[in-house]
Amino acid sequence: MINDRLKNQLEFLVEIDKMKSVLRRTLIIDGSRRENDAEHSWHLAMLAMVLEEYSEREINISRVVRMCLVHDLVEVYAGDTFAYDEKGYEDKLARENAAADKLFSMLPPEQGSEFRALWEEFDEAQTADAMYAAAMDRLQPIMNNFLTNGHTWREGNVTSDKVLNRMQAIKKATPELWPVVEYIVNTSIERGILQK
Amino acid sequence: MINDRLKNQLEFLVEIDKMKSVLRRTLIIDGSRRENDAEHSWHLAMLAMVLEEYSEREINISRVVRMCLVHDLVEVYAGDTFAYDEKGYEDKLARENAAADKLFSMLPPEQGSEFRALWEEFDEAQTADAMYAAAMDRLQPIMNNFLTNGHTWREGNVTSDKVLNRMQAIKKATPELWPVVEYIVNTSIERGILQK
Repeated sequence: MINDRLKNQLEFLVEIDKMKSVLRRTLIIDGSRRENDAEHSWHLAMLAMVLEEYSEREINISRVVRMCLVHDLVEVYAGDTFAYDEKGYEDKLARENAAADKLFSMLPPEQGSEFRALWEEFDEAQTADAMYAAAMDRLQPIMNNFLTNGHTWREGNVTSDKVLNRMQAIKKATPELWPVVEYIVNTSIERGILQK
Repeated sequence: MINDRLKNQLEFLVEIDKMKSVLRRTLIIDGSRRENDAEHSWHLAMLAMVLEEYSEREINISRVVRMCLVHDLVEVYAGDTFAYDEKGYEDKLARENAAADKLFSMLPPEQGSEFRALWEEFDEAQTADAMYAAAMDRLQPIMNNFLTNGHTWREGNVTSDKVLNRMQAIKKATPELWPVVEYIVNTSIERGILQK
């Protein structure tokens, strides 16, 4: 017998398959197409696992990995907001809160609350776990952007000061990774794929 | 300064971006295209998190999630082997071992060994963690297949006894989920999307 609890859990797991169709601005590294939220979340979790040692503060990597996996789930309804889209950011919170209400209520209450709490913690970026996850969430797209000739920077007319500003999360949580950001930004300016 | 250790880790993280281009036979649920390994791995980890309570044996969910995220990495070089392709399975092990040697040696030794051990444990499917992960790895595609009109079954002329045989991993690790398999198989036969 398939009871309601299990049925709800399965319906949630089917619903989030839509993450595979939420497109981000970033391209995958071979440059062939835009990246989607599901593969971005996977890549992020891999970065978190591999680069754990660079976290300035002590973190619980298992929580971080879970956070990476759920951090974009609300985009199933709210869509992806481009990192440098100031207008999009104005109503991002309201759109995403409504999406969270809808999505997480599909799960049994205690599970829905657990996932929602992880998503909120990520979004608030105050705890050591969330700050490290946020740093990974900056590093993954800057890496992909750099290796696809600055695709989203050129598309969005983004300047290096905006990139450096957005990357502060890396400086805060993983200062040892800051030279990677500097290298990418400086090399990108030299190559003319990022405006100074 | 970016030292060799960090450089190797970043190169590994760039290399595995190729998971986003390794196509599986399964379609995503909206039926629009084939699923890739990166999004499959993400979806699997989500199933593992949501359905944890159905594991017959005690598991360490953090290890299971890590295992789900890395279980298909070797396919970056070895490609995906269709579950019902008997010929492909003949040299799967040799192909995947060679791929593992190449891929995991990109990482610092202790990290490479850790990831490789997780992958091997998944493949051997003997521990409680690996058996639960294997059950999720069966449930995810059967769910997607069912919701895309039996796409890969029809393509591969797969019969219900083969499906039921492959799904034994679910019966073993998560017997409470077996009615889901039975429901899917019986309904699919009724609908004519799976041969009896």
